[in-house]
Amino acid sequence: MVETEPKPPVSPDAGSTGPDKSAEADKPPERGRLGALRTFFLGPPLATSVHLAHRLPILLALPVLASDALSSNAYATEEIMHVLASAHRYMGGPPTLHLVLPITLAIAVLMFIIMASYRRAVLMYPESGGSYTVARKNLGATAGLVAGSALVIDYILTVAVSVSAGIAALCSYAPVLLDYKVLLALLLIVVISWVNLRGTKESGWTFAFPAYGFVGMMLILIGVFLWRYFTGGVHPLPVPDHAVQATTAFSTFLLLKAFSNGCAALTGVEAISNGVQIFRPPEAQNASKTLLLLILTSVTVFAGLGFAAYSFHILPNERETLVSQIARATFLGGGYLPDALGQLLFALAIGSVLAVLIVASNTAFADFPRLLAFIARDGYAPRVLLSQGDRLVYNRGILALMVISAGLVLFFQASVNLLIPLYAVGVFLCFTLSQAGMFYRIISDRQKGWLAAAAVNAIGTIATGSVMCVIAITKFSQGAWLVVVLIPLLVLAGRAIKRHYQWFERRLAVYDNDENPLRRESSQPCVICLISSDINRGTLEGLEVARALTGTAQGSEIRALHVELNPARTALLVSRFEQLVTPNYPGITLEIVPSPYRWLVQPVLQYIEQLQSESGRRRRIIVLLPEFETGNLFEQLLHNNSAANLRRALMKQPEVTIITNRFFLRK
Amino acid sequence: MVETEPKPPVSPDAGSTGPDKSAEADKPPERGRLGALRTFFLGPPLATSVHLAHRLPILLALPVLASDALSSNAYATEEIMHVLASAHRYMGGPPTLHLVLPITLAIAVLMFIIMASYRRAVLMYPESGGSYTVARKNLGATAGLVAGSALVIDYILTVAVSVSAGIAALCSYAPVLLDYKVLLALLLIVVISWVNLRGTKESGWTFAFPAYGFVGMMLILIGVFLWRYFTGGVHPLPVPDHAVQATTAFSTFLLLKAFSNGCAALTGVEAISNGVQIFRPPEAQNASKTLLLLILTSVTVFAGLGFAAYSFHILPNERETLVSQIARATFLGGGYLPDALGQLLFALAIGSVLAVLIVASNTAFADFPRLLAFIARDGYAPRVLLSQGDRLVYNRGILALMVISAGLVLFFQASVNLLIPLYAVGVFLCFTLSQAGMFYRIISDRQKGWLAAAAVNAIGTIATGSVMCVIAITKFSQGAWLVVVLIPLLVLAGRAIKRHYQWFERRLAVYDNDENPLRRESSQPCVICLISSDINRGTLEGLEVARALTGTAQGSEIRALHVELNPARTALLVSRFEQLVTPNYPGITLEIVPSPYRWLVQPVLQYIEQLQSESGRRRRIIVLLPEFETGNLFEQLLHNNSAANLRRALMKQPEVTIITNRFFLRK
Repeated sequence: MVETEPKPPVSPDAGSTGPDKSAEADKPPERGRLGALRTFFLGPPLATSVHLAHRLPILLALPVLASDALSSNAYATEEIMHVLASAHRYMGGPPTLHLVLPITLAIAVLMFIIMASYRRAVLMYPESGGSYTVARKNLGATAGLVAGSALVIDYILTVAVSVSAGIAALCSYAPVLLDYKVLLALLLIVVISWVNLRGTKESGWTFAFPAYGFVGMMLILIGVFLWRYFTGGVHPLPVPDHAVQATTAFSTFLLLKAFSNGCAALTGVEAISNGVQIFRPPEAQNASKTLLLLILTSVTVFAGLGFAAYSFHILPNERETLVSQIARATFLGGGYLPDALGQLLFALAIGSVLAVLIVASNTAFADFPRLLAFIARDGYAPRVLLSQGDRLVYNRGILALMVISAGLVLFFQASVNLLIPLYAVGVFLCFTLSQAGMFYRIISDRQKGWLAAAAVNAIGTIATGSVMCVIAITKFSQGAWLVVVLIPLLVLAGRAIKRHYQWFERRLAVYDNDENPLRRESSQPCVICLISSDINRGTLEGLEVARALTGTAQGSEIRALHVELNPARTALLVSRFEQLVTPNYPGITLEIVPSPYRWLVQPVLQYIEQLQSESGRRRRIIVLLPEFETGNLFEQLLHNNSAANLRRALMKQPEVTIITNRFFLRK
Repeated sequence: MVETEPKPPVSPDAGSTGPDKSAEADKPPERGRLGALRTFFLGPPLATSVHLAHRLPILLALPVLASDALSSNAYATEEIMHVLASAHRYMGGPPTLHLVLPITLAIAVLMFIIMASYRRAVLMYPESGGSYTVARKNLGATAGLVAGSALVIDYILTVAVSVSAGIAALCSYAPVLLDYKVLLALLLIVVISWVNLRGTKESGWTFAFPAYGFVGMMLILIGVFLWRYFTGGVHPLPVPDHAVQATTAFSTFLLLKAFSNGCAALTGVEAISNGVQIFRPPEAQNASKTLLLLILTSVTVFAGLGFAAYSFHILPNERETLVSQIARATFLGGGYLPDALGQLLFALAIGSVLAVLIVASNTAFADFPRLLAFIARDGYAPRVLLSQGDRLVYNRGILALMVISAGLVLFFQASVNLLIPLYAVGVFLCFTLSQAGMFYRIISDRQKGWLAAAAVNAIGTIATGSVMCVIAITKFSQGAWLVVVLIPLLVLAGRAIKRHYQWFERRLAVYDNDENPLRRESSQPCVICLISSDINRGTLEGLEVARALTGTAQGSEIRALHVELNPARTALLVSRFEQLVTPNYPGITLEIVPSPYRWLVQPVLQYIEQLQSESGRRRRIIVLLPEFETGNLFEQLLHNNSAANLRRALMKQPEVTIITNRFFLRK
């Protein structure tokens, strides 16, 4: 069976644990023009034995795993202000903007609740504590699939949102690029995909620089802001006219909506629990510490930006991101800083935002194909997602992510504000399932201190579950409905795939108690060699192959079959056959079947059917299709593809085996 | 050899000469869902023995063959006026409009010259006197190909121009349709194609009604006009303001350009010489008479319309055709006719124009695929164009014509004026080649009266050749360049195709003096059965097929080959093989080839190469690919197509024969 779905390896993430043999020195063999092209773009193929073996200390693991979570702060506050600003204008004054503060606080509390739960998950599932695993192991396959589907959607959105936000940051600094933002975003996605297809294993430092750069610049920004704030140098900015876009009166619904938007800040927290294996031992403890560090940093940055946005009365606008506006007001306004230093800090702040967002979407490119491989290993996704390309990466997953996220960016014109409603539902669904799974595990195990632990997870489940409902309801009409519809569909698809694979395995399996696993053919097979209206070299080679294959002593039967498309030529064919074939192969008979409607396939099928009914249904028919080599497209167009049509039709017939013999015109 | 390019029948146009057996009563067999769909749209398949045997008298053959030529009059005058009108406005008065009269006269003379030549061609080549045949037989294959290419282009343009002109006529009557004219034109092309794909053989009356209707209505129109003219009832119309579109001063170049445009009236004359076989005997004489009749009718209508257009000072405009304007002025203006009668005649005139143009493009749909079949029979076009579909029509030619002409209509927005420059070059190229061919034949044969005949054809050659040059030069920049470029390309393509077929035949032919046409295989073939990392039922069936096919007594070799994509599973495979295969097939060995880069195809090719070099280069390798049935697209996506990839790669290897055995999971 040439199926070659690579059977699941022990762990699809073996990349980070294997030995560090440098097999790259062995030059791989040549593979023709296409192979050379591939090598040019992606680098030479890597042997299976090449693996990255580095384990990272906490301070390097944090940026590798947490850039996604950190980068969320680059747009979360802006999304809160989007909602508050629309109400603000309607009321004719600034009374609602201050709500950014309690919302930010609520989200910070939520961050701590989620962290508490994930720290425990990491300790309990050091191999991989992601919500797919936790939900599947504790709540069953369907819950796991729900979490998996939600994660799949979220990784796609991570790329779309991060890239769009990154380009928005770039355009804030260089507004001349605004007209090209969709194109730039698509280009960025392609470049990130290409880097990932090359599969270069980045060192931790590649991530450390953008991540710590971002955190550092945000802390400087908040620091300068606080200095100005406490020295009385912060004054609300005048509200620009083009922000006048009143939509509705302020209400609890709007408050919840603003909160929902802000929950985007929580995306990406999942990553650490999936990457426990890259930490230095003790892995789980280090991962747990890193999680704490991440949340503390994240809360600081998020709260600081929220407070600054409120103090400056900054409203989101289409042309400049909120962070850019804050940085501009802080570094450049009021003459607090020397102009050159202010300009430098502003540029660095924007650059660090762009860099961290690129790294964040890069993280999704690393995690998404790995998650798909996990799901495929369990049989819920096509097994082809398990096979690694030349560069030892799951290239099909990477390409899928590229195409889908690029499609989203194109459809939503690289607008973060339009993409956000699709985003957080899935994230909170994962949180909820993960918390519920942990709760279930804790009350099942009842180990020391289980009551307190269960309480933490119960609170977490309720909190994240409620938030998920709030998000789904408040953003339903803007796009969340799509996710609400898509997740069940993905779950159904996953289950159908699993069912098919199970059925397939059952049908193919050979059991030890099978009495006769080798079903002996009941009679000699009959070889039918199809011939056209002329006996040519190809025909003769086909007949010779049939003879050589079956041997003459066996009494096996070879028939030459001609479908009579043009009766006028039959007599000539018969005489040519008698002259060229019969003397050499006395056993081979020429059968002629009429085809009144000039069909080729149907008479052959009819002939086979009749042959089988004559000689007992189980006789194996072997059809030999003598073709000839067609070199290029030009030649393929000149010779019609009847043989290919015939092969396709015959492949659908049980008890029919097909022999393809190509006559090589150029040999 | 399952090439099944149907070898050329005696004549691809056998449809009109064969016996009239009504084999349609035999119900053809079922062919699945796709076949049922086809039957629904196209009607049940027709057996090869069904043929139309009607021969037509002159009065019915005329409309069948000449509707294209007649219908040209519906737009030729308008195209002359297009050029004259642009100069007319520039000069500030009407001094150039009268030039329509000498131009019309010149074209009428040209008509007679061409007729004289074609009447002789018809008598000499009663099978088919078209320019493709005449040029090929007298001037060589290349000249024939040039004529053939020109004809191919002209048939396409006949459809595009006729349909566009027909829709323009319709829109003249119902201007509300003007916005949809492109859509309507495309729809009309699809409908005509569909009718032709159904292959219903129309009776002569289907053509007689529109053709004679058109001639009749035009004669009535001209009659009424003349009556008004001689009773002083014709006054030049006021020139509408929107016609003010001065382009250039009047010059000889413009005169020639107007003349070139008018030559569109001559398109379609070719048809009669191609359809000699549908006349009642004596075919050639009747065809010759019909040609005379056609030219007389055509000249009358053309001259009448030209004179009327001049007398009324009618200028072409975007919204109403010239014929419609003449009919409106003649039937509705000045109170000559009762209003109801005038309205009726006007509507009938427009309707007859539309009808004759539809019939004209229908003629192209009948002739174009037949011409392609002629060319394919001679080996200059893909042989697939020779095979007739279920309904005994050359369906591929019809579809090609539909797609290309629809593309032209779309590109030129159904504008006759934009399409015309592409049109007449090819037509006159054919005329010239046909005349030159006739001239060559006459001076070669030197039969009685050859001198006079040669003189006629010499004049014809010079006249049509000069006109061709005039057309090519005056309309070069407006589109004629495309045809000038395209014809040589088509000729080159045709020659390349012919060369390939000849080479192909030579390589495949079995000659009588071949010492050993059956190249005996030098040694027993080696059967390689590919197996995946597991022994399953499919594997076992594959091995059993190999055993049954080769027999055990022959000493033929069967090897099981495994490409080691995942070394971790090899030990298990070996033990499974020893347990399940070895006891039953002691002769079959398991070979394992490593694949450090996780490639499947390359190691197999390498293994085969090594095997061949070990056992003498000429040993035939038979690779057995055990696949499994994949029912639908869903299943195909779940099982990767390694077997298909492998088959594709192996097909490129000489000395390799492929056995495909599908395991049927559902049987």
